Amino acid sequence: MRRQGPSSIPRVVVIGAGFGGLAAVRALRRADVEVILIDKRNHHLFQPLLYQVATAALSPADIAAPIRTVLRRQSNVRVILDEAVGIDRHERVVHLVSGREVGYDWLIVASGATHSYFGQDHWDRHAPGIKSIEDATAVRRKVLLALELAETEEDRQRRDALLTFVVIGGGPTGVEMAGAIAELAHRSVSSEFRSITPNCSKIILLNLAPRLLEGFPQQLSDAACRDLTRMGVDVRNSTAVEDLGEDWVVAGGEQIRAHTLIWAAGVKASDAARWLESSEDRSGRAFVDQFLHPDGDSRVFVVGDTAHCTGPDHRPLPGIAPVAKQQGRHAALSIMAMIRGRTMRPFRYRHYGNLATIGRSHAVVDFGWLRLRGIVAWLIWSTVHVFFLTNFRNRLIVGLNLAWNYLTFARHARLITGEAAPAVATIRAEFPASKGEDHVRAL
Amino acid sequence: MRRQGPSSIPRVVVIGAGFGGLAAVRALRRADVEVILIDKRNHHLFQPLLYQVATAALSPADIAAPIRTVLRRQSNVRVILDEAVGIDRHERVVHLVSGREVGYDWLIVASGATHSYFGQDHWDRHAPGIKSIEDATAVRRKVLLALELAETEEDRQRRDALLTFVVIGGGPTGVEMAGAIAELAHRSVSSEFRSITPNCSKIILLNLAPRLLEGFPQQLSDAACRDLTRMGVDVRNSTAVEDLGEDWVVAGGEQIRAHTLIWAAGVKASDAARWLESSEDRSGRAFVDQFLHPDGDSRVFVVGDTAHCTGPDHRPLPGIAPVAKQQGRHAALSIMAMIRGRTMRPFRYRHYGNLATIGRSHAVVDFGWLRLRGIVAWLIWSTVHVFFLTNFRNRLIVGLNLAWNYLTFARHARLITGEAAPAVATIRAEFPASKGEDHVRAL
Repeated sequence: MRRQGPSSIPRVVVIGAGFGGLAAVRALRRADVEVILIDKRNHHLFQPLLYQVATAALSPADIAAPIRTVLRRQSNVRVILDEAVGIDRHERVVHLVSGREVGYDWLIVASGATHSYFGQDHWDRHAPGIKSIEDATAVRRKVLLALELAETEEDRQRRDALLTFVVIGGGPTGVEMAGAIAELAHRSVSSEFRSITPNCSKIILLNLAPRLLEGFPQQLSDAACRDLTRMGVDVRNSTAVEDLGEDWVVAGGEQIRAHTLIWAAGVKASDAARWLESSEDRSGRAFVDQFLHPDGDSRVFVVGDTAHCTGPDHRPLPGIAPVAKQQGRHAALSIMAMIRGRTMRPFRYRHYGNLATIGRSHAVVDFGWLRLRGIVAWLIWSTVHVFFLTNFRNRLIVGLNLAWNYLTFARHARLITGEAAPAVATIRAEFPASKGEDHVRAL
Repeated sequence: MRRQGPSSIPRVVVIGAGFGGLAAVRALRRADVEVILIDKRNHHLFQPLLYQVATAALSPADIAAPIRTVLRRQSNVRVILDEAVGIDRHERVVHLVSGREVGYDWLIVASGATHSYFGQDHWDRHAPGIKSIEDATAVRRKVLLALELAETEEDRQRRDALLTFVVIGGGPTGVEMAGAIAELAHRSVSSEFRSITPNCSKIILLNLAPRLLEGFPQQLSDAACRDLTRMGVDVRNSTAVEDLGEDWVVAGGEQIRAHTLIWAAGVKASDAARWLESSEDRSGRAFVDQFLHPDGDSRVFVVGDTAHCTGPDHRPLPGIAPVAKQQGRHAALSIMAMIRGRTMRPFRYRHYGNLATIGRSHAVVDFGWLRLRGIVAWLIWSTVHVFFLTNFRNRLIVGLNLAWNYLTFARHARLITGEAAPAVATIRAEFPASKGEDHVRAL
């Protein structure tokens, strides 16, 4: 990126416009620096509500805002749609996929994480995870198409497979997905199909751990499990996935035939540690010190899901939005301190609480000093999520949508998009109609 | 489709859940018939507002409703996601792409239309039309990506090509697209980019006819042309497109370099005439008599964009929603009359008026007895469109969105989705950065 003339203003380059990157950029809004924000997407995504897109309750634009719009009043930032592919720390340059190079005085790496299939990368074709808008609409398409095909499928076994939804992973994402699919399959569509009834669908949640939501206290895990079971989800704890394919999964020694498999089990960090040639943990996160520097390099900060930063209990901090936001902001404040010749402070994470929702009007909330479940927890969950949505318009629309869906059980975004028709032909070929059953003559 | 036991209830099969098909199904809601509605999509699409999705003002789910939801209270209809590929009129059977067959007593064909490139089918790769949700999001992606790439492009010529948007076709769709792109490029994004300014963009409307909106009176055509020109659109009437490619178009003897070309020029009917082995006009529409039957076959009705039905002036009726709706309803009423042994009436189209909008707060309205333009016309246009949206929830949200966009110039759905990152690399490869310009060293 060419500098305009000789410049004495220091440049901060931020990679990634997720929670961490955006918090860093915003914290620099009054600093006398030039900020360059690089992201491979044009939008900031509110990932915690992505499962609502996957289950047709919200539209993509409800939970994603163009990065430029979010930052339009911050004049010291330049947003670039491009992708980092390498970092030269000696030359202080970021290499981009377009072939460009961007020099930096300080660098904040906030490039996030993606799914991990624990070495079984070929599983991603059959059991997609949910990290991007495209992931979410692909899952939405798969779930809705399964219901459509089941409506006209007359072979019992094939129909059961179409109506079996398996969610893999017992963390917040898995719990939220399973609850939302149960609602979609059991309630929202109940009056709209002629052949399938709400009781036809089977939702199975496979959890490797002995209990759901391991980050929560035992009593809230139990509550979540009870709530899900009451909603018709078959929760299977301590159950490892051994293998999976096109329309089946083997777990706990049993083969389950299921057309829809959804992965919510593991994450791995972006390639930041490799770019930095820095040491990384098993999930690919770069080890950082208490100032968020990798290898003590005071020009570079790594924040959020792509950083391995230990908390006071010597365990790595979890990959959640509050950690990323606080780290991004801390990196920005540290840079401002260095510019002013002041001392940096070490990063300290302030934990405010854990939230997870289990479908309509159920949630669990753990503030440490307060543990809640049920409708009150759900109201807190809704308020917090709508409040944190990045820009005001989205906040209003999502609030209206959530309220409307609550009142009507409606899921308005039930669109099967992306070449629906060929898919029908393809999937019909995989699940051909039984012979002689569908040939009809009129009167 | 298997019948359950011996049935004396006549079966009406409807192909297509657009305006025509849906109107037919609804008119049969109290009839003692079994209705089977076949569509290759799971959603009914409000096509008149599709250009608003293409220009990021509305989300797909705002203008599309699941067919099952629209018809959930009508118990005599069964919705099937499948695609017609043939009709056997002798056996009275519809063949579907899945290999199934559906027998009928009466058949209503309402399978719509798609783009026509007048024999230059390879143009569709470079100049996409807008008929489906996928078309609209692809155009949205292309337009937004062009702005993003222009922001960092330092070569003047390439930058100008990225910021040139050519709309081909001077009918309502072309006029609406050109107006909406002018707004997006000139106003909505003005404060969000650092390198490109509102005046950088060039919007060109190529119109084969001597004036815009040929279906309207001359004075309204002139008004539309003036409004568009004032919005910064370069309107070129009587200009034929001679050839086009990846990032250029030749029109009126001049070559224009433009990264974004949008096709709004011609339509051709679905394959219904071929399925029916019926005679068709130049656009592929099946000729129908005054009762909407092809070849006088009283078991079959063809309605909407796929029918060639002449009006009182002996010219074919236009491919617009009111014609399709009235014909769909007429076919349904004719079937009910036949069942009751009454005489069918010939179809008569009642024309209520023409509407077209030209961006924020401009529109033209022609009721015959009343011709309007400007803000009053725009208010009528908005009211009519929001009112006709199929289900109530969409009506509310679209109304709110239109009002919000009007007040703020915002275009909230500005998401580049569908593998954005690889696209950056690809398009960067097509438009490589100029040598030596982008290599920077930090201080």
